[in-house]
Amino acid sequence: MSGSSTGVLFRVTTFGESHGGGLGAVVEGCPPGLLLDLDAVQAELERRRPGQSAIVTQRKEGDRVEVLSGLFEGRTLGTPLALVIRNKDAKPDSYRPFKDRYRPSHADFTYDARYGIRAWAGGGRASARETAARVAAGAVARQVLQSLGAVEVVAWVDRVADVDASVDPATVTAEAVEAYPLVRCPDPDAAAAMEARIRAARKAGDTVGGVVRCVARGIPAGLGAPVFDKLDGDLAKALMSLPAAKGVEIGSGFAGTRLTGLAHNDPFVPDVERGVATATNRSGGVQGGISNGMPIEVAVAFKPVATVFREQDTVDTAGKATTVTPRGRHDPCVLPRAVPIVEAAVCLTLVDHWLRWRGQVGEPPPVPLLG
Amino acid sequence: MSGSSTGVLFRVTTFGESHGGGLGAVVEGCPPGLLLDLDAVQAELERRRPGQSAIVTQRKEGDRVEVLSGLFEGRTLGTPLALVIRNKDAKPDSYRPFKDRYRPSHADFTYDARYGIRAWAGGGRASARETAARVAAGAVARQVLQSLGAVEVVAWVDRVADVDASVDPATVTAEAVEAYPLVRCPDPDAAAAMEARIRAARKAGDTVGGVVRCVARGIPAGLGAPVFDKLDGDLAKALMSLPAAKGVEIGSGFAGTRLTGLAHNDPFVPDVERGVATATNRSGGVQGGISNGMPIEVAVAFKPVATVFREQDTVDTAGKATTVTPRGRHDPCVLPRAVPIVEAAVCLTLVDHWLRWRGQVGEPPPVPLLG
Amino acid sequence: MSGSSTGVLFRVTTFGESHGGGLGAVVEGCPPGLLLDLDAVQAELERRRPGQSAIVTQRKEGDRVEVLSGLFEGRTLGTPLALVIRNKDAKPDSYRPFKDRYRPSHADFTYDARYGIRAWAGGGRASARETAARVAAGAVARQVLQSLGAVEVVAWVDRVADVDASVDPATVTAEAVEAYPLVRCPDPDAAAAMEARIRAARKAGDTVGGVVRCVARGIPAGLGAPVFDKLDGDLAKALMSLPAAKGVEIGSGFAGTRLTGLAHNDPFVPDVERGVATATNRSGGVQGGISNGMPIEVAVAFKPVATVFREQDTVDTAGKATTVTPRGRHDPCVLPRAVPIVEAAVCLTLVDHWLRWRGQVGEPPPVPLLG
Amino acid sequence: MSGSSTGVLFRVTTFGESHGGGLGAVVEGCPPGLLLDLDAVQAELERRRPGQSAIVTQRKEGDRVEVLSGLFEGRTLGTPLALVIRNKDAKPDSYRPFKDRYRPSHADFTYDARYGIRAWAGGGRASARETAARVAAGAVARQVLQSLGAVEVVAWVDRVADVDASVDPATVTAEAVEAYPLVRCPDPDAAAAMEARIRAARKAGDTVGGVVRCVARGIPAGLGAPVFDKLDGDLAKALMSLPAAKGVEIGSGFAGTRLTGLAHNDPFVPDVERGVATATNRSGGVQGGISNGMPIEVAVAFKPVATVFREQDTVDTAGKATTVTPRGRHDPCVLPRAVPIVEAAVCLTLVDHWLRWRGQVGEPPPVPLLG
Repeated sequence: MSGSSTGVLFRVTTFGESHGGGLGAVVEGCPPGLLLDLDAVQAELERRRPGQSAIVTQRKEGDRVEVLSGLFEGRTLGTPLALVIRNKDAKPDSYRPFKDRYRPSHADFTYDARYGIRAWAGGGRASARETAARVAAGAVARQVLQSLGAVEVVAWVDRVADVDASVDPATVTAEAVEAYPLVRCPDPDAAAAMEARIRAARKAGDTVGGVVRCVARGIPAGLGAPVFDKLDGDLAKALMSLPAAKGVEIGSGFAGTRLTGLAHNDPFVPDVERGVATATNRSGGVQGGISNGMPIEVAVAFKPVATVFREQDTVDTAGKATTVTPRGRHDPCVLPRAVPIVEAAVCLTLVDHWLRWRGQVGEPPPVPLLG
Repeated sequence: MSGSSTGVLFRVTTFGESHGGGLGAVVEGCPPGLLLDLDAVQAELERRRPGQSAIVTQRKEGDRVEVLSGLFEGRTLGTPLALVIRNKDAKPDSYRPFKDRYRPSHADFTYDARYGIRAWAGGGRASARETAARVAAGAVARQVLQSLGAVEVVAWVDRVADVDASVDPATVTAEAVEAYPLVRCPDPDAAAAMEARIRAARKAGDTVGGVVRCVARGIPAGLGAPVFDKLDGDLAKALMSLPAAKGVEIGSGFAGTRLTGLAHNDPFVPDVERGVATATNRSGGVQGGISNGMPIEVAVAFKPVATVFREQDTVDTAGKATTVTPRGRHDPCVLPRAVPIVEAAVCLTLVDHWLRWRGQVGEPPPVPLLG
Repeated sequence: MSGSSTGVLFRVTTFGESHGGGLGAVVEGCPPGLLLDLDAVQAELERRRPGQSAIVTQRKEGDRVEVLSGLFEGRTLGTPLALVIRNKDAKPDSYRPFKDRYRPSHADFTYDARYGIRAWAGGGRASARETAARVAAGAVARQVLQSLGAVEVVAWVDRVADVDASVDPATVTAEAVEAYPLVRCPDPDAAAAMEARIRAARKAGDTVGGVVRCVARGIPAGLGAPVFDKLDGDLAKALMSLPAAKGVEIGSGFAGTRLTGLAHNDPFVPDVERGVATATNRSGGVQGGISNGMPIEVAVAFKPVATVFREQDTVDTAGKATTVTPRGRHDPCVLPRAVPIVEAAVCLTLVDHWLRWRGQVGEPPPVPLLG
Repeated sequence: MSGSSTGVLFRVTTFGESHGGGLGAVVEGCPPGLLLDLDAVQAELERRRPGQSAIVTQRKEGDRVEVLSGLFEGRTLGTPLALVIRNKDAKPDSYRPFKDRYRPSHADFTYDARYGIRAWAGGGRASARETAARVAAGAVARQVLQSLGAVEVVAWVDRVADVDASVDPATVTAEAVEAYPLVRCPDPDAAAAMEARIRAARKAGDTVGGVVRCVARGIPAGLGAPVFDKLDGDLAKALMSLPAAKGVEIGSGFAGTRLTGLAHNDPFVPDVERGVATATNRSGGVQGGISNGMPIEVAVAFKPVATVFREQDTVDTAGKATTVTPRGRHDPCVLPRAVPIVEAAVCLTLVDHWLRWRGQVGEPPPVPLLG
């Protein structure tokens, strides 16, 4: 209720600043008896890790996750999992210039306004490093989802600045995305153009943003809740709360608003496998806030990275005009590293709704009375 | 935690199906001693009401809100306000054809999947009528915001299908929006074109969607919480949970992803009134999940209305292919009526974060230690 | 989170002052498809109703519960049930003497301190009348529990002032309790003595308190959660939050602290029916915060009613010494009417934990790995 | 919402089994800018530590708390504080006999029933060791309370088995309690008798329980919330959720039920310091669920320790009758060590309600309209 927690039954609380002892997540409500694959958790952290290539930041975080509790002989106990990642490689001095100057489009000023105090030695709680905790927790969520059925959650870079990819959500695979981890775009031509675009930005001391898309397959019809906790509402919150996110779409999104109802509606059709399907999927797998069994499709807009290596106008902490020139190790484009973060946010949202649904209706869920 | 509640300190729980005894909201945590203007609450309901013109649905709901509790001699007691709106004018028989056939892109199928039972006599809990409860609660939230300072929350129709308006968020007024309640677009030329577009859709038995934008002015810097409950994250959830919403943006949104960091960043500048301001507002008033004192700007994409008056393919509740031809009273475009609903969602989110902030840091908030 | 809600999955929000439009409860998360017996809900309200006899208050509330939402053709939809009870028979003038004088051991002063405003025309939110909403919600909870298994929740008056009853929790029945609704004590001799004690208090313009005990049978082993949300912790909260409650016990309670560990421990024994049982039940059916399959046994201490019909010292709202002499219709002893209220609190707690458990572990629950 | 969290604004999530990597707490919502005294936190852990004397367990845990996040230059940032305590001195082999046998009146069986898996190498999550995390978080809460005013929270051992102390809640001091940490009873004669009683139990391989009382002074009138989240309701939950707790009282408790209303009521009297006081304090500082400015007085019943060093009947994990004879390092009486734990639970409850109150009504709180 105080901002660093999410979920009702599968509840995640994160902690940690970018510089300090460490960061991590406490995962409450994990189903018990799951043989947790810690290597898979670590692998997700590696995907998020800075320093994977020349076009992303050169820091070697080498984060290792440690599980302090909630596991016994490799299995989840159902009690809280505490996942801790130590901070190292801290160079707070490189942040000293920002101690009394607010970096534009960063959270320096707003943290001072919110709390009257700010961990200026790094981005503090607003650092993108915080997402390591979400990725670790999301990796647990993914394994729970897999234990509940053959769920697959795959994200990819769909656009960088003006470079669009052409990717079919129905068929895209995790392997195709990871084939080129430098940009994590499964469209090879677009990937090459994106890489060039990112290199050009870096060379100019500038940065770029873009769009990440994500599909979740194998989600049964029935997940979600009406009104405030709609599945798409919770997905929107989870995705908009990612650093640098400025927009979220489900299904047809903003483009769909240009269609008429006749063109936009998804006709229902009989389906051998799942009973009922839709011929098209402009709904993005969610209707009335509840999953309909079709793939869930979301998109997230990430603004260009705020840290540009050029002098910019700003004010100091006394409110006087000054300038600031960031230095240090920062990505010119976070999109490739945002891919596992988006997947984590989606996994966390889905598993919580799955458990909530099971709690209310039992298992197996009720067959429609009219069916 | 079960889907029909939102907020932490200013907490709203709604109830009600479109057909049945009635609907309403319980508002917990309202600050005490507020002289509640019930006429203003009723006025917001009138703005949301169907049947305001020839281009929107002809139902005369004439909803009257009744306050069952939480008021004494006109003032809020600080205890729960129960706002109840009776249902009338129910014609469940007009829904009988849909009892065993799923309307495309409606929530009929997903409710059956979720619960195994569905209130087929109307849209049930998924009906747009549910938003009356949010509007009533939002009208209370607006008054609380006003009592906390000169907060102004104004939304408008910014696009209908392909008809774009040109509206300056910095100067748009509620009066300009309400000057033409038929479409609630303060750009007169665009408004006329929008009306024509909506009439054309209605004539064709078809429907259209579009975009509503909203600005909140007078919000102090410091509202919001890091990580999961970011102010933009909670706004995204509140807006994406509105019926027919498929996309949400804050500030520069998806368009901003085409800029580079240098072009996108908002330089800080000294400001006589608020101490610190930004020269531009691509952040949309939120940085790092916390308000920065600039106007908060959001946009919502509403898909075209699912109820088109044409035969469509679907399946019945036994999963067999069939067709369905909706009839009845439905808007060809919900955008004009969505304007007060968007404002309500924004007000509810802001007031809750305001109270949460005050709880953690006290009043007046702390001056930054470095300031 | 604002005080008038309880539960995580089966979540109840109540509203209403003693005088005003009405009061009620919104029940979120009720399992769908349940054929709700509204007469049974009404019957519970009758048990709580004042005016059942000469020894309790003579008001004829005749509360009728109305269900505004969440039902369709008699079955629960899984969406919020709104239960509304209208206020009538309001005589606020009888409260006018207390407008500016604080009644001793009532909540008049604390409400003023908490909110700066108080509904002096009745006890407001602190009125025992508020419990009607809990009883209505609890009656729904009881039906859900019954649908999940043969759960039986029975409370009785175990002591009035110094008059103790002798009741065996293992065998007491609802019928035996209701056989004498005047005092709701299934020990006939004690019941007669209690009645005499209550009549004596009434004659003296004085009041008495006592102890209500409650047993819940048929609860499977496994309900509850470690650490903060222990089953006995949540039961204690639910019971201590009842008006006039000053103490709560589970199992052996305070008396058990006089035994040594050897005498207090409950040996496990094989059991044909439930696999494992305990030879004694000093644990009261809960061990480590989780049910062990034995009957759950709790006790609640209710202080003597604060409204005594004698002049008492107090202060006025300006803080000056004065006196107050309550009049009106008040019970000399709330214990008999507290019986259904205690049962409601227990039912609400149990059903929420049952759903939470099902959400986390699925259904049927896992067999112990070592078993 | 999954059992290991508590509080709304000042929210604490704990994690950790008795054996495993470690345990700890994440504290969300702490007011920012507080110069946190870590020595004071550590000192509370020392008070809770086993091995303080010959009459309590001989383990040398030597727990050191490490703060991983939420602090900057010694001050709280307002972001989550992660408090971690490493486990050491683990001897899981001493628990091997209980791997497939359920210890009577322990949580072995119920954890298996709840989760289907159990950390048999120690008490797991049900171990009293878990309370170290609460004590650490409570020590932070205490410092926040002190920063909000001169709040003093003092608990003591009021009874061991049949040995009663005579302690005046109005005047008892922390110094008097700590003067004899062996039993933490400020009545010297009773303390000596309690020590003898505990030694006798230990010699007999048996254990004893008792009662801890606690007083909180300096709490302003106005803390708490009506109905479900009453201050005494939340205190009851916090206290009943402590290991081995079987009963909770506020103010006059169970004994008060033997008084009549006239004898039990607390007359209001003018008070120079706080405006309004009560001549007696049978309410225990809480009326209608809200603090009235008088000292808050609670009591907790702790059952005798379940680990007795004698053969006892039980069943194995296959449900067959067997016996078990616990060995190892266990207290014959937890009461002295429960004193800081009770204080922690009270501090956590009070600070959360204080912040919630401030959030709803602002600061300073409103003066009663009638005042």
